[in-house]
Amino acid sequence: MAKVLTPRSENYAQWYNDLVIKAGLAENSAARGCMVIKPYGYAIWEKIQRILDDMFKETGHQNAYFPLFIPKSFFSREAEHVEGFAKECAVVTHYRLKNNPDGKGVVVDPDARLEEEYIVRPTSETIIWNTYRDWIQSYRDLPIKINQWANVVRWEMRTRLFLRTAEFLWQEGHTAHATREEAIEEAETMLKVYAQFAEQYMAMPVLKGYKTASERFAGAVETLTIEALMQDGKALQSGTSHFLGQNFARVFDVKFQTKEGKEEYVWATSWGVSTRLMGALIMSHSDDNGLVLPPKLAPIQVVIVPIYKKEEELKQIVEQAEKIATALKQLGILVKIDDDDKHKPGWKFAQYELQGVPVRLAIGPRDLQNGTVEVARRDTLSKEVVPVTGIEKRISELLDEIQNGIYQRALKFRDENTRKVDSYDEFKKVLDEKGGFILAHWDGTPETEEKIKQETKATIRCIPINNEKEEGKCMVTGKPSSQRVVFARAY
Amino acid sequence: MAKVLTPRSENYAQWYNDLVIKAGLAENSAARGCMVIKPYGYAIWEKIQRILDDMFKETGHQNAYFPLFIPKSFFSREAEHVEGFAKECAVVTHYRLKNNPDGKGVVVDPDARLEEEYIVRPTSETIIWNTYRDWIQSYRDLPIKINQWANVVRWEMRTRLFLRTAEFLWQEGHTAHATREEAIEEAETMLKVYAQFAEQYMAMPVLKGYKTASERFAGAVETLTIEALMQDGKALQSGTSHFLGQNFARVFDVKFQTKEGKEEYVWATSWGVSTRLMGALIMSHSDDNGLVLPPKLAPIQVVIVPIYKKEEELKQIVEQAEKIATALKQLGILVKIDDDDKHKPGWKFAQYELQGVPVRLAIGPRDLQNGTVEVARRDTLSKEVVPVTGIEKRISELLDEIQNGIYQRALKFRDENTRKVDSYDEFKKVLDEKGGFILAHWDGTPETEEKIKQETKATIRCIPINNEKEEGKCMVTGKPSSQRVVFARAY
Ligand SMILES: [Zn+2]
Ligand SMILES: [Zn+2]
Repeated sequence: MAKVLTPRSENYAQWYNDLVIKAGLAENSAARGCMVIKPYGYAIWEKIQRILDDMFKETGHQNAYFPLFIPKSFFSREAEHVEGFAKECAVVTHYRLKNNPDGKGVVVDPDARLEEEYIVRPTSETIIWNTYRDWIQSYRDLPIKINQWANVVRWEMRTRLFLRTAEFLWQEGHTAHATREEAIEEAETMLKVYAQFAEQYMAMPVLKGYKTASERFAGAVETLTIEALMQDGKALQSGTSHFLGQNFARVFDVKFQTKEGKEEYVWATSWGVSTRLMGALIMSHSDDNGLVLPPKLAPIQVVIVPIYKKEEELKQIVEQAEKIATALKQLGILVKIDDDDKHKPGWKFAQYELQGVPVRLAIGPRDLQNGTVEVARRDTLSKEVVPVTGIEKRISELLDEIQNGIYQRALKFRDENTRKVDSYDEFKKVLDEKGGFILAHWDGTPETEEKIKQETKATIRCIPINNEKEEGKCMVTGKPSSQRVVFARAY
Repeated sequence: MAKVLTPRSENYAQWYNDLVIKAGLAENSAARGCMVIKPYGYAIWEKIQRILDDMFKETGHQNAYFPLFIPKSFFSREAEHVEGFAKECAVVTHYRLKNNPDGKGVVVDPDARLEEEYIVRPTSETIIWNTYRDWIQSYRDLPIKINQWANVVRWEMRTRLFLRTAEFLWQEGHTAHATREEAIEEAETMLKVYAQFAEQYMAMPVLKGYKTASERFAGAVETLTIEALMQDGKALQSGTSHFLGQNFARVFDVKFQTKEGKEEYVWATSWGVSTRLMGALIMSHSDDNGLVLPPKLAPIQVVIVPIYKKEEELKQIVEQAEKIATALKQLGILVKIDDDDKHKPGWKFAQYELQGVPVRLAIGPRDLQNGTVEVARRDTLSKEVVPVTGIEKRISELLDEIQNGIYQRALKFRDENTRKVDSYDEFKKVLDEKGGFILAHWDGTPETEEKIKQETKATIRCIPINNEKEEGKCMVTGKPSSQRVVFARAY
C-alpha cells in the first residue's frame, strides 16, 4: 500500500499535518488561522469533553456561560494581564454593514462605530470577575466553582492545526474562595484532575509542576502545569491551573464579609485545557500509518470488515458480524460494521488504520466455516485468528490491554528521553542531538533562564511538584542551586 | 410570604424579567446585549442540548465545528442572504491593541487593520458551503449531515434575556443532498424532531407549518417552523428548518457528479434552535411564584427538605432522606437533599418554588414517627402526606403525571386561545382584547400581509402543514382564499 503520510523520520511537522488532514480530524478554513474541526476529529473532542465534564462535576463544579465580548477598558485594569494577553486579539469596532454605495457587495457602515471597542475573549478572567462582584457579598456566597466550555480567540501569526490556532475551543474554570488555602487546594485539585485525565484516558504520561515566574499565566501568583513529551522530543504544555491570589478581586473590587464580620478580598483560581489536547493525543501515540487512539477516547473502538466475493457470502458474513456487534455493545463497546460496497477491504483497512480504530475484525467465508475471526490491533499492527466463541470477552480485555500498552510505551519513551545533564555544553549537545526532557541545575534567576532560552530555544517546562532536593551548581553561572528543573524545547 | 416577582397580571414583561433574574437563570452583562447564563439556567440548557443531540445522532447526524469569523466578502455573494443578515452584526476590523502612548490603558493599534474585515457569524451557511465545496465531488460524498453547537451574534438594539440577545447559543444543522426530494425530506424530518422535542420534553404544544415568503429565512426556498403560544397570548417561533434549494451551492459553486456522470448543484437544508427555547419554556408554564419546569428538563426533579428544631432530629431525618434519595436515584430520578443549616425551611420552600423543582418532599419529626412524607407538587401547588413505603414508585408516577399535566394545561390554553375570525374588525378586536392564534382568510399576497402587519402588528405565523382547505374571502381585500392561515402578535 502506498504511504499516504510523510514518514515521521523525514519531516515530523509535515507528518503531523498530513495526519490531521488525511484522518479527517481538522483543516484550515477561509478565516485565517481558524480551523474547521471535522466530524471525526470533533467526535474525539466530544469524548474528551464528556469525560472532563463529568470529572469537573464530581469535584463540585457547575457550568455557566459568559459573554464572547469583553469591553476594551477591562484590559486596561489589570496591568500584568494586559501585557500577557491584550496585544494580539480580535477587536470589534463596528456593528453594521451596508450595501456598497459605489457598486456591488457590502462595506462597513462608518456611522456604526462602537463608542467602546469589544475584544473577542482571549480568556475570561476579567469579565467573570466583573460579574462575580455582584454575586459575592458574604462568606455564605463562597465558594463559587464554575466552569465554562467556550471558544476563545488569540491572534496568532503562525498557526498549526490544533496546536496553535487563532480560534480554539476550550474549557475555563473560574473559582472564588474565602481563603488563600482553599484556593491553592482548588488549583492543585484541578491539576490532579488534568493529570489523571491525561494518564488514564489519553494514555499520556505527564509531569506535574510549577511554572517559573517568567512562564506564569499573566496575572497569576502561581501557575501549575502538566507537561507531556511528544515523539519528536519536544514538550507540550497540556493543561494549566492558576492560583490567582487576590489579583483579580482587587482589580474588580470583589470583597466579601467574613464570618467574623471583616471585609476581605476574594481568592481566585482559573484552569483550562483546550483543543490543543488533540495535538498532544496525536503526537503521543501515532505512527507512519496514521492515528493511534487510546480505546477510551476512540469514537469507534472496534470495526468489523466483511471479506467477500459474492453477494450471498456478504449476507451470511453480515449476519455473523451483527451477532458479534450485539455482544460487544452489551459490554458497552463502540462498534461499527462497515458493509459499504463502494470500497474494497484493502481500502477500508488502510482507512481505519489512518483513523486509529483500536481493533479491526475481519470475517471471510473461511472464517464462517471455521468459526473464527481475524483480530488486528492498531497499536502493534499484529494480527491473529481467534475463535468466534467468547470473542466479546476477549475483545473487551484486548481494549484494556491496548489502553495500558500505549500508556506504557509512551512512559518508556519519556523515561528514555529524560536525562540529567551537568554542563551547559552537554545541555546544548543533548538538546540538539536527542531532545527530550533535560534535568539540570539553574540558579533561579530570570536572567539565566532568559539567556538559556535565547541561546538554545529551551525553556523551563516546570519545577516538579515535590521535587527531589539536590545540591548543585547552575550549569550556566555556576551559582548554587538546590534542585534540578525540567528543560525542553516546546510546542 | 412576600411576592418576589411582579405578578403576571400587572406586567407580563416585568414578571418574565424578574423570574429570569431571581430564579438564577441569566442576567445582563457588561457587554451590551450579551447575557450571562447562570449555573441553574445553564443546567437546564445542558439538558436541552443533551436530549436534542441524541435525537440528531439518532437521525444520522454528526457534530463538527466551523469558524467564528466569516470573511466579509462571503456576505456579498448571496444577495438575499445579505439583505436578511449582514446589516446588524459584529465587525472585526483590527487584530491588535497597544499601550496608550498618551497615558494609561490600551488603544486599538491603527497599524493592525485587517485587509478584509471579519464578521462574527450570525449564522454559518456561507462559511460552511464554502467548505463543502472541497468536501463534495461525487454522489458518493453525499449526503453530508452535520450539526454544530455554537455561539452566534446578531447586533440587536432591544434585547431581552433569552428571547433576543446580541450573542446567543444555538445549534445549526447544515446538510447537503444529491436530490431535491431528499433535501425536502430532511427539512421535514428535522421539523418533526423539533416538534417532538417541544411537545414531549418541553411539554409545549406547537403548530407545524410553512412560513410565507416574506417571513422566510434569508436564502431559503421554504422555511418550516414550529410556533408556540405564550401565556400572554403572543406567539413564539421556537425552531425553524429550511429547504435552501440549490441557492448556496450556486453561490459557492458546490457541484457533484451524479451516478450517471452528470454534474449538478448540491441541494441544501439548514435548521436551528437556540437559547430562545429557554424563554419559550419559561413563558409556557410558569406562574407568579416562579418557574414551573417539566420534569424531563428539570436539573433537580425532587428536592427533600428536612424540618427540624434540634440537631438530633436533623440527623435522623437526613438518614431517612438518604434512604429515599437512594431509592429515587435507582429509578434514574435526579434528587437533592437540602440539609443546609443557613436557611429556614420556609426560605427553602420559596426558593425551590421560584426555581421550579417539580416535586418537594418535606420530612419532620412527626413524619419519622408516622412513617410518612409530605409531597408537594410545583405545578398545582397541592400537597399531600403519603406513606414512606413505596414512595419511589409513587414519585416516579407523579413525575410522569406532572409532565403530562403541564402539557395538557398548555394545550388547553392554546386551544382556548385559537379562534376563527372572519372580518378584519373582529380580527383587530380579538387581537387587542384576547390575543392568541387567529385563523383567518388571506388573499396570499405580500401586500395584504404587510398591510395587516403595519396596522395591527400581527404577522402570519405559519400556514399549517396539511392545512384544511376551506373556500373563503380575504378578511382585508375580500379576494378569494382557499385556506385559513395562522396570525398572531409574536415575540
Ligand atoms: Zn443565603
Ligand atoms: Zn470513497
